[in-house]
Amino acid sequence: MKALAIDLGGSHATCAIVQDRAILASEVVPADAAENLSALLARAAQTFAQLGKKESLALRDCAGIAIGFPGLVSMRETRVVSTNAKYEDAPRLNLAQWGRETLGLPLRIENDARLALLGEAFAGAAQGFTDVIMMTLGTGIGGVAMIEGKLLRGKHSQAGCLGGHIPVLYTGRDCTCGGKGCAEAEASGWSLPLVFRDWPGGERSGLAKYPSIGFKELFAEADAGDEVAQKIRDRCLQIWCADAVGMVHAYDPEILLIGGGVMKRAADIVPVIQAHLNRYAWTPWGKVQVRPALLGNHAALLGAVPLLTETLSA
Amino acid sequence: MKALAIDLGGSHATCAIVQDRAILASEVVPADAAENLSALLARAAQTFAQLGKKESLALRDCAGIAIGFPGLVSMRETRVVSTNAKYEDAPRLNLAQWGRETLGLPLRIENDARLALLGEAFAGAAQGFTDVIMMTLGTGIGGVAMIEGKLLRGKHSQAGCLGGHIPVLYTGRDCTCGGKGCAEAEASGWSLPLVFRDWPGGERSGLAKYPSIGFKELFAEADAGDEVAQKIRDRCLQIWCADAVGMVHAYDPEILLIGGGVMKRAADIVPVIQAHLNRYAWTPWGKVQVRPALLGNHAALLGAVPLLTETLSA
Repeated sequence: MKALAIDLGGSHATCAIVQDRAILASEVVPADAAENLSALLARAAQTFAQLGKKESLALRDCAGIAIGFPGLVSMRETRVVSTNAKYEDAPRLNLAQWGRETLGLPLRIENDARLALLGEAFAGAAQGFTDVIMMTLGTGIGGVAMIEGKLLRGKHSQAGCLGGHIPVLYTGRDCTCGGKGCAEAEASGWSLPLVFRDWPGGERSGLAKYPSIGFKELFAEADAGDEVAQKIRDRCLQIWCADAVGMVHAYDPEILLIGGGVMKRAADIVPVIQAHLNRYAWTPWGKVQVRPALLGNHAALLGAVPLLTETLSA
Repeated sequence: MKALAIDLGGSHATCAIVQDRAILASEVVPADAAENLSALLARAAQTFAQLGKKESLALRDCAGIAIGFPGLVSMRETRVVSTNAKYEDAPRLNLAQWGRETLGLPLRIENDARLALLGEAFAGAAQGFTDVIMMTLGTGIGGVAMIEGKLLRGKHSQAGCLGGHIPVLYTGRDCTCGGKGCAEAEASGWSLPLVFRDWPGGERSGLAKYPSIGFKELFAEADAGDEVAQKIRDRCLQIWCADAVGMVHAYDPEILLIGGGVMKRAADIVPVIQAHLNRYAWTPWGKVQVRPALLGNHAALLGAVPLLTETLSA
């Protein structure tokens, strides 16, 4: 089955024509997330037309359009429920109508992290598993769940996609979600500079020389022996571990996939989380396997076919 | 519909004949949780026979037997998966066979907290809602979830029933579940004496005079102006609040029920958790309602009819 896929990110959107587990053609469209989604969709339609022409693929042979959106999405109602400083016009758009009128195809939309998990289950590291959680460690922390082969969505479409917003430090710092002490507020790309700013003795650390600190700088300085960097890195690992236990206890998965920018350092991360789950998660049936996600930026695009073919219950 | 119900507790088991939303007759059977479940079930069968005779109810008119068990249970396989120092022989028993041969009735078993939530949804505080979480604050902390009208169970039957074991303090104390910093390890009946033992200045607190400290003593001393008791009480409230946010973010409920022994002080607890969720939970659709559970010790018994009539998917 062929499908069109759009993965909406903060700085760009990727448009792809996919066939089952393969990406036939794709093109990155520069995007400013602050802009309107409606303008971006117009450019996506042009991009699909060009891609189809270049690759001699008839768009009308596609089964539909799948969109991954960075915010809360009601897949059943084909609409964006809540945005987070990105594409603020999205909740007001009639996306199904746009798909029908512009491309002549049915459209489904899903939260981008959920769509990526669907891709990993269909074509990546979770193939063959029905009960999977995925953590994405990057600027934010994504945490999504698939239970018995279905994405968990819940009443208001926000079950099973806020794993990064489980409080792991009840006295912790404010989160952009409005919460307090969420894993994301304590150990994500955006919160790392705040953690460093408040760290005693930070001004004497090698980290102080960088205009902005990300996980790349953190791991590099920790490797170079910087003590503050080592302590902050270890604290991040502990927080990711606690968040992983919370998600395992909440969702009862067979495997945990970990993705995101930090996974360039997978060898420093996966074994630590695996050992922590082995020791601290209550799983009398056996051990949850921890694996790196495989598909990277392609994961959400490869979620298109399973999203479009999913059977919806009443 | 009539049914037999057994709610297994640590110090006693309650046997009841129920009809839909009413308990027709019940009797408490003393139990030592360390004893064998098989011995207790034999006594339960005698108790049902006596109850039936006394109340002129024919047991064969009942649709089945529902058991609430304090441990991990596979409802689909009608078996206990993991015990926690209670009824250690339970995983080896063929419960369906016992029900058929001893009482001539089909049998289903479920985790006791899940069964209580089913009862509250059928006949108590959650009537009319499909998406509900329930926290039980007592010796331990129960945390169970119903999503779209169904108890959440997951691959190994342990999804949606370990809400008390979400880590809310990643550096926290060891939990009996094997975890670390779980809500239960920081703010439950069993962990309260440990928290007090480690509290700076505890020896000068009014709490020091009690041979054993429970929430009753904690709230009483806090009311009397004891500063340590006030601080520990407030810490417990903060931890329950963080756990509530974790469960709301994980399961996307419309309402949160709170039950357990501490709810004698509901007026000191419910408004605090409601205000915390209003402020810190990310629920763009509206506000999660916090309500006291209504059925107390009857909740699991009144879960019998919905448990026995539940349609199982393949």
